[in-house]
Amino acid sequence: MKEYDTERLVDIILDSYKTHELTVRVDADNMLNKDTLIEVLEELRKILFPGFFDRNRVRSEYLRFLVGERLEFIQYNLKKQIARALGDCELCRSDCGDCSRAAGDRRADELVYKFMEKIPEMREYLYYDVLAAYNGDPAAYSYEEIIFSYPGLFAVTVYRVAHELWLLGVPMIPRILTEHAHSVTGIDIHPGAKIGRSFFIDHGTGIVIGETTEIGDNVKIYQGVTLGALSTRKGQQLKGVKRHPTIGDNVTIYSGTTILGGDTVIEKGATIGANAFITSSVDEGMRVSVKNPELEFK
Amino acid sequence: MKEYDTERLVDIILDSYKTHELTVRVDADNMLNKDTLIEVLEELRKILFPGFFDRNRVRSEYLRFLVGERLEFIQYNLKKQIARALGDCELCRSDCGDCSRAAGDRRADELVYKFMEKIPEMREYLYYDVLAAYNGDPAAYSYEEIIFSYPGLFAVTVYRVAHELWLLGVPMIPRILTEHAHSVTGIDIHPGAKIGRSFFIDHGTGIVIGETTEIGDNVKIYQGVTLGALSTRKGQQLKGVKRHPTIGDNVTIYSGTTILGGDTVIEKGATIGANAFITSSVDEGMRVSVKNPELEFK
Amino acid sequence: MKEYDTERLVDIILDSYKTHELTVRVDADNMLNKDTLIEVLEELRKILFPGFFDRNRVRSEYLRFLVGERLEFIQYNLKKQIARALGDCELCRSDCGDCSRAAGDRRADELVYKFMEKIPEMREYLYYDVLAAYNGDPAAYSYEEIIFSYPGLFAVTVYRVAHELWLLGVPMIPRILTEHAHSVTGIDIHPGAKIGRSFFIDHGTGIVIGETTEIGDNVKIYQGVTLGALSTRKGQQLKGVKRHPTIGDNVTIYSGTTILGGDTVIEKGATIGANAFITSSVDEGMRVSVKNPELEFK
Repeated sequence: MKEYDTERLVDIILDSYKTHELTVRVDADNMLNKDTLIEVLEELRKILFPGFFDRNRVRSEYLRFLVGERLEFIQYNLKKQIARALGDCELCRSDCGDCSRAAGDRRADELVYKFMEKIPEMREYLYYDVLAAYNGDPAAYSYEEIIFSYPGLFAVTVYRVAHELWLLGVPMIPRILTEHAHSVTGIDIHPGAKIGRSFFIDHGTGIVIGETTEIGDNVKIYQGVTLGALSTRKGQQLKGVKRHPTIGDNVTIYSGTTILGGDTVIEKGATIGANAFITSSVDEGMRVSVKNPELEFK
Repeated sequence: MKEYDTERLVDIILDSYKTHELTVRVDADNMLNKDTLIEVLEELRKILFPGFFDRNRVRSEYLRFLVGERLEFIQYNLKKQIARALGDCELCRSDCGDCSRAAGDRRADELVYKFMEKIPEMREYLYYDVLAAYNGDPAAYSYEEIIFSYPGLFAVTVYRVAHELWLLGVPMIPRILTEHAHSVTGIDIHPGAKIGRSFFIDHGTGIVIGETTEIGDNVKIYQGVTLGALSTRKGQQLKGVKRHPTIGDNVTIYSGTTILGGDTVIEKGATIGANAFITSSVDEGMRVSVKNPELEFK
Repeated sequence: MKEYDTERLVDIILDSYKTHELTVRVDADNMLNKDTLIEVLEELRKILFPGFFDRNRVRSEYLRFLVGERLEFIQYNLKKQIARALGDCELCRSDCGDCSRAAGDRRADELVYKFMEKIPEMREYLYYDVLAAYNGDPAAYSYEEIIFSYPGLFAVTVYRVAHELWLLGVPMIPRILTEHAHSVTGIDIHPGAKIGRSFFIDHGTGIVIGETTEIGDNVKIYQGVTLGALSTRKGQQLKGVKRHPTIGDNVTIYSGTTILGGDTVIEKGATIGANAFITSSVDEGMRVSVKNPELEFK
């Protein structure tokens, strides 16, 4: 008898694939590839901020070719990933009614094109996001520092990309992208959230912005803020229901504050202090702060 | 004289290696390699969730070979790393009493085999963890989305792997693995913690679960929750002492809550609201929430 | 007509480069490369902790060559990056008054040399940081575990490196380094902060330490602590102003606590409990804790 019976090990593992099939994907077609999606995201970021993330100097006389070549990379790879994501009709939110592979490919091509048409609009949004970061943070030495190194801008960039894919009904991929940004930055923005212009996240670690959140223009949010649901005990029964708050224009929310509930509206111009816990609406222009819990000194 | 005296630079650095030897490992045998450990983890995840993280379609007729080949990769690499970790008797919690290199190799082989025998059990645990995430989160569109993109599931997967190695007495490696997950997800679970079935972490950034924590079945925890020690001023004197809380079955703990102390027991079915600070036990089925600190409106 | 008009796509993207020029860097000289900076950091970490992060055994008879070769790598690559960072006079805080490329190169060479001269001093600081972690954490099994796997030590290592570059007036690069550590650990330490000896961060996710913070010796900080500014509504007008707190020697700050304001001083030996919100000074040796917000049980 062998001391270590590898055949037996393989057998017990193969057996376990029969009993918990939910976590097994064998002979299945639609494998998404997270690495490829992240490469697509990186190429896209080079189009959105040309010259910032390139190894070499970007020369204006070659710019047209560079952009064209990058679009081709995105077209080829993102199309393939979207086709795979569409392959599973249960996941697909696109409602195309035609699920053959050829139809999926056609639809994926169309979705990528529509998505790429949005690049100028995404660039415009990101321009105002960069301005908002610079104007909002005395520790910012330049626009370049923000684009190069601010995690908040990275998370917002990925969100703006993922949200466009979300609006087009692409399944799975938007969430994979925002969870990548979550991993890199600690900032968890669901791709379904709606966020206006000039959005600034400072520091950012621990921020959670739920699926049905709506955020206006010129909003500023600090680390540890949750815009969440009041309770999710009903689980899947709540799918699609507005469960997360609405934040008006020009609102500031300081660090560690939790705002919960789909009916909770923070009206425009309000300021919410640090560490607050808010489950009802706040009127226009109000400044809300926690009456400091008494401190004990010994 | 040279303007920049590199010889001198090298000398002052080499000198500094003599004065602070604790942070120097020269002529030492047991180098662990974090990159290799992460590769092992990735291969293991492909065995635990076959077909989800593969570049190509996994075909059932080749599955046996694929699993066998992956086990071989793990056997070879993990064994080598474990042998290195065991090489330092002060670290080793295995109490084998025989510290020759050959004995270390034999013991490492045995530990890897025992660890791999646990794969079906880990798969079973993870199956229930995926179910718990789906049932607990209205924003989850599919089981696949959870397996592909939920940081909570990633952290729990790594914990379940690391905990088995911990139980086998492997030094260093379990903590390196959970700190990798901590880095990727912001969720810090000590490999020594005990966690039951159907565990769901939502969002997760900022969660800390200490070494001597015990968690029952069907527990749900949100971002920013700390299950910690009351005070660690005594430092190393407290090693091995139960310092972290016990959480019963079916408990829910909302975001930002801190529960401290080895004698603190949250009995089964209790619900702890957001931002609470708990240092004493909570009875079965109780709903505890912070009486909201008064808000000031200006 | 083509179904998908790629030429048109390229054109609308190129057009968008004309309208939002702030986010375009075409024909610009000074491209920093984040990947290169992270490689430099990794080589530097191998010099700071020789033998810990090497694939192969480090042999004493080759140590001199190894250190020399690593310094060369750093000299070559960091010099190039610093020269690029200096290339933009608006960013440059070095006040050299001579902005030709040759002058930039000379200055970069000088800065790298000065920086490398600080390696023994950085090693000394890090030695005490490792000791502080071991003495402060009962879950630490060895010094090696701390050096290999503690995110707090990683963040402090990167901070100590970045702070030296900051003191030398290098633009951009210090912040890129600390934001890398922020991404890896969730710990956000501005390179401008001043931090004394034997600094210990436990767990660490969510920590924010602002630009003008000053921290003494033997300070211990837990996850989720913010040392921040009272309000940053004035944005860029506050640049350079002391906006963040001062923390004395031997202070402990437990998890989730927020301390704000440039005039706020936590005097030596004070202990600040978890989840506190502090905006005024605390006297020497005081123990401050939040009078627990009342809990409601239902």
